Amino acid sequence: MQAQATTQWRLRIDAALERTLPAADEPPQRLHAAMRHAALLGGKRMRPLLVYATGTAFGAKLEALDAPALAVELIHAYSLVHDDLPAMDDDALRRGQPTVHVAFDEATAILAGDALQSLAFATLAQAPCDAAAGIAMLRELAVAAGSRGMCGGQALDIDATGKKWGQSEFRAEQPHGPEIAGANVHPDPISELEHLHALKTGALLRASVRLGAIAAGVDTATRAQLDRYADALGLAFQVRDDLLDVEGDSATLGKTAGKDAAQDKATFPALIGVEASHERLRALSHAMELALSGFGDSAGPLRALARLAVERDR
Amino acid sequence: MQAQATTQWRLRIDAALERTLPAADEPPQRLHAAMRHAALLGGKRMRPLLVYATGTAFGAKLEALDAPALAVELIHAYSLVHDDLPAMDDDALRRGQPTVHVAFDEATAILAGDALQSLAFATLAQAPCDAAAGIAMLRELAVAAGSRGMCGGQALDIDATGKKWGQSEFRAEQPHGPEIAGANVHPDPISELEHLHALKTGALLRASVRLGAIAAGVDTATRAQLDRYADALGLAFQVRDDLLDVEGDSATLGKTAGKDAAQDKATFPALIGVEASHERLRALSHAMELALSGFGDSAGPLRALARLAVERDR
Repeated sequence: MQAQATTQWRLRIDAALERTLPAADEPPQRLHAAMRHAALLGGKRMRPLLVYATGTAFGAKLEALDAPALAVELIHAYSLVHDDLPAMDDDALRRGQPTVHVAFDEATAILAGDALQSLAFATLAQAPCDAAAGIAMLRELAVAAGSRGMCGGQALDIDATGKKWGQSEFRAEQPHGPEIAGANVHPDPISELEHLHALKTGALLRASVRLGAIAAGVDTATRAQLDRYADALGLAFQVRDDLLDVEGDSATLGKTAGKDAAQDKATFPALIGVEASHERLRALSHAMELALSGFGDSAGPLRALARLAVERDR
Repeated sequence: MQAQATTQWRLRIDAALERTLPAADEPPQRLHAAMRHAALLGGKRMRPLLVYATGTAFGAKLEALDAPALAVELIHAYSLVHDDLPAMDDDALRRGQPTVHVAFDEATAILAGDALQSLAFATLAQAPCDAAAGIAMLRELAVAAGSRGMCGGQALDIDATGKKWGQSEFRAEQPHGPEIAGANVHPDPISELEHLHALKTGALLRASVRLGAIAAGVDTATRAQLDRYADALGLAFQVRDDLLDVEGDSATLGKTAGKDAAQDKATFPALIGVEASHERLRALSHAMELALSGFGDSAGPLRALARLAVERDR
């Protein structure tokens, strides 16, 4: 039943994306083909599923959830295109396909990411919903995507990788050079890493849950409980990601395994070890159960997504 | 009096940007310093001025215009950061300052642009205004910024430059290669160029006027008249830009002159000659006067901005 719901929602979001993205033969064709490549070729659709699961758990209709589900997935898709760029993570493979700058070119990849971000907000601003709820969702998503959310997390990640900044010959001339250098020697690397992921992946996962909650019009206490669920889920998602990079294989993952270690990236397995990372996952799983314990059967799909975040193999 | 208004609004938008952008000592500092570098170091503030000039012409209060004025300027600032990237126009100088990827690094420039775009929508979604008007402004801005507006125009521009795509070894493998190649041999290069600029710079200038109009709650007939003004202004702005690249000097411009010709870029002077371009500017100036002729003295600043677009020397 719950597996059926997520399968049905995956088909629903894929169809909605197909409708929402400009056709590949609409000019400028290359840009539109790149946007479709970025958003349509696979993906777990975790963020839209969270919108649907949260919204329906508290009585929202699917029709009211399509726009926020599309918006969070379009933001996610844009972030992957830009993260994969040569100046960022320099990845050639994503979801088993060439990344956008490889399949097209770098300029097109930058523009496709930019246009996907705009499309996310355009889609949400065109949602058939109460204007006040629409504004609240737009505010939530825009803040989660920005420098105090996802983009800020990616900036911290590039810093933590210790690769890109060292390449800049202008670094020493920057007015804020010293403070930034200081950020690399944070006294508690685990909290630093958790903070990084709370922004980089956590902010958008939390926004996905919140958008579903806003669409359903839930009360403040319920929202706080859902935030607890979303925060544990975001962290679990990332710990699992780090473990897959160590234990998974590229074919199943659809992206290059072992890349974190090769880039000397700060990860949970690297900082606390593989066993402790698995233990951390179990604790987060328990935290999610607890956060949802006050809700009834209608929260079943949220519980299923908690298991998916912890148990996924890609 | 009108000159006083625009001077006052320039100070107002600069102060508003200063307040809205995260402080350079808020982590991640490097990202925030790059965002401030992109948005605070000069610029004509043409788009915010259009918001203020349109809004006040039809009775909106300045306080209701700050958020839309900020939003259009933040979108403009992000687009410049990304346009200047090595994979795009590869510019080292902007407003007499090193471009963001030169002053910082490429990864930070990509992220700063991304975060500025998010901040534009977050700022507009936090505007102290009626929710329905807020949603209408967000929709207008998001569509103008996307692949059917500014990003689409930039994609066409990269195509027209005939430089970047030729460098891609993957071009021939793209599903839409033939149609895109065909776009280069459009039977009417002038309408093709006008279409490019209607998207690349026109869409955001038109959105600036429309946001001011929405904030002031103008009627449909007035909006149509303002669209005519905005479209002529957008084109005039670009013709002047092309002429400055031929006739201006880098010191006054604050960016590299003669770059269009060096890049073999399609421009109005290149297609119809310098004299005919000046004549075109005069015709557009007349079209703007005509579009504003039904409005009274309160449209004075809109007339002043029309003159600025046509007569500016940087």
